[in-house]
Amino acid sequence: MTTPARPRPPVAAVRPEIRALAAYTLEPPPPVLPGVERVYKLDQNESPWDPPRRVKERVARELLVRSWSRYPEFHADEVREALSRRLDWPLEGILVGNGSNELLALSVEAFCGPRTELVGIVPCFGLYPLYAIRAGATPRFLGPRDDLATPIDELLEEIARDPRRPVLLASPNNPTGEALPPAALARLASALEAPLFLDAAYSELGEHDYRPLLDEHPNLLLFRTFSKAWALGGLRVGYVLADPGLVAELVKVKLPYNVGHAAAVAARVSLEEEPAARRRIEVVKARRGEWARMLAGFGLEVFPSAANFLLVRLSGAEEARRVHRGLAERGVLVRDVGGGPGLAGCLRVSIGTAPAFRALRGALAELLGREEEP
Amino acid sequence: MTTPARPRPPVAAVRPEIRALAAYTLEPPPPVLPGVERVYKLDQNESPWDPPRRVKERVARELLVRSWSRYPEFHADEVREALSRRLDWPLEGILVGNGSNELLALSVEAFCGPRTELVGIVPCFGLYPLYAIRAGATPRFLGPRDDLATPIDELLEEIARDPRRPVLLASPNNPTGEALPPAALARLASALEAPLFLDAAYSELGEHDYRPLLDEHPNLLLFRTFSKAWALGGLRVGYVLADPGLVAELVKVKLPYNVGHAAAVAARVSLEEEPAARRRIEVVKARRGEWARMLAGFGLEVFPSAANFLLVRLSGAEEARRVHRGLAERGVLVRDVGGGPGLAGCLRVSIGTAPAFRALRGALAELLGREEEP
Repeated sequence: MTTPARPRPPVAAVRPEIRALAAYTLEPPPPVLPGVERVYKLDQNESPWDPPRRVKERVARELLVRSWSRYPEFHADEVREALSRRLDWPLEGILVGNGSNELLALSVEAFCGPRTELVGIVPCFGLYPLYAIRAGATPRFLGPRDDLATPIDELLEEIARDPRRPVLLASPNNPTGEALPPAALARLASALEAPLFLDAAYSELGEHDYRPLLDEHPNLLLFRTFSKAWALGGLRVGYVLADPGLVAELVKVKLPYNVGHAAAVAARVSLEEEPAARRRIEVVKARRGEWARMLAGFGLEVFPSAANFLLVRLSGAEEARRVHRGLAERGVLVRDVGGGPGLAGCLRVSIGTAPAFRALRGALAELLGREEEP
Repeated sequence: MTTPARPRPPVAAVRPEIRALAAYTLEPPPPVLPGVERVYKLDQNESPWDPPRRVKERVARELLVRSWSRYPEFHADEVREALSRRLDWPLEGILVGNGSNELLALSVEAFCGPRTELVGIVPCFGLYPLYAIRAGATPRFLGPRDDLATPIDELLEEIARDPRRPVLLASPNNPTGEALPPAALARLASALEAPLFLDAAYSELGEHDYRPLLDEHPNLLLFRTFSKAWALGGLRVGYVLADPGLVAELVKVKLPYNVGHAAAVAARVSLEEEPAARRRIEVVKARRGEWARMLAGFGLEVFPSAANFLLVRLSGAEEARRVHRGLAERGVLVRDVGGGPGLAGCLRVSIGTAPAFRALRGALAELLGREEEP
């Protein structure tokens, strides 16, 4: 006797463009070599420093006082109010999300439907094509250029061909670290009759403040996050700044209660304790040059970065995979981005603590057969 | 001299079907009358009792130990593992979300594209049409029947016409409280060549466990939440159970890191402390009859409910609005659902604490001019 076979799930009913996708994943690293005691995570562009203990305890205390059974605010107004004051931008022009990627995805969805295109560039953050495909739209991503830079002139030509297609860019870009000057973004925004989505997740770590662009460009949607400079990647809070008229439309597609009590309290308290974030930001900025020089000292090509990470190119794809694996075995996790367009032979290294710096330098010395500088 | 007018935002670039939507909102209540000291929230079907202090403190302690700057797991595996053990369902067949509504929205998106229909019924939870519209699909929602019940036979006819369209139902349904027998759902699932999305957010409060249906019906996606019976509405955690083959597709559209540390820890600890949730559930179940009798005693039509709320119908739409407002002025917030299809004159009342019961009864006595029972 056999049990009847369970019928098969209707996988064929999944939209074909989604079925064709590969899931966004991070390969588990190989086991570390004997004797390696610490693992340094330099593969997700996180802040290596937590918010100070005092800040975390303040958040935990406030959280315990709240009723967990009660829904949070519809749109996290406590965070919007704090951001509105700090950034001098109306509360009605701010929306808070479960990470800025939630807001990017829903913004693309609000403006892009089937038979539309989302204009962008490569290399870019791996989730951008998904935003378009989820919305039923087609990514039209230009590049890569040999120097991996954002092709502003090509983008202007593309916009001239049809200015009604939204454009999605990041500055600083991931994984290159390239920062776009506000003037270039202003030219793009002015040429567009559609939104310019600007993912500025890393902007606090660079030199440019894109907030003033909003005063002149009502088609700019500026996405920022508490995950990087604010060291809250684990609690999931991002936000978008845009014209209140556009935010009123985004509110229609955003799900209510998308920011839980813990995320809302952590973001608000972090803003109240801004000096703690400032200190972390200054350390990363100060160390970026040192990290770049160390990596260049090993003969790697280092791309200029305005973010908390550095993109490096090794002599070839095989070599990059070997070094990526060898670093992981030595307890130093960096990101192998070599599968992306124009990125063969490239690794992305988050800027970390001083011990992480020494571990990376020591491991590279072993792997690249060069002597460490004294 | 005048400053040049700021150009207008490109609202016209928003997808027309989204522009046509009204935002999902909850009207702010009118001010309470002088002398009213407490407000009872019976308008969001929340648990009136928080998780016990001990549970909250355990969560806060674990949260403080974690690194907040580090991203959470891609897919909240600590919660999936705990659910897998408790529900005897493979981890690969579980996905955790920022509330179950995130997972419902993305599941509809995975299966519904432009020029497709999502089959459902009215009355239903107000966000369901949005899920379809976000995906570019058209809601085809049957009903309402006079008794507001789910029209199983009509649904079977609709499925027979074209079994390739996904069906979205809730059991217990919101705002009616109606629970569907597993056998009826099995008939629908068997007739379908597409997924059956079952929103079971309130199912712990009813008599039916829909989990066994998964063993026979690989096209069933069962959505549950920690927001209701588990009293974690403020921390945002829901989950979906389905065939691992389908979950592998959902993973492609779900954004990574969608469940922050606080939500993940709270859900896992809640499962470990299940007796606390059990006690809350038993109290609500035990009181449901008492609340229904009290409401019926005022001459209201009370719909049978398997959830933590009761739908009542008053003598007319005007009367319902008057009572809704009068209750709010007396510190008792209930939900005016009268704008929904078939729901003219209806209010939805969450089952609350004993003081909330007395406040509601007293306020109704004043508003409906009937004497309170002693």
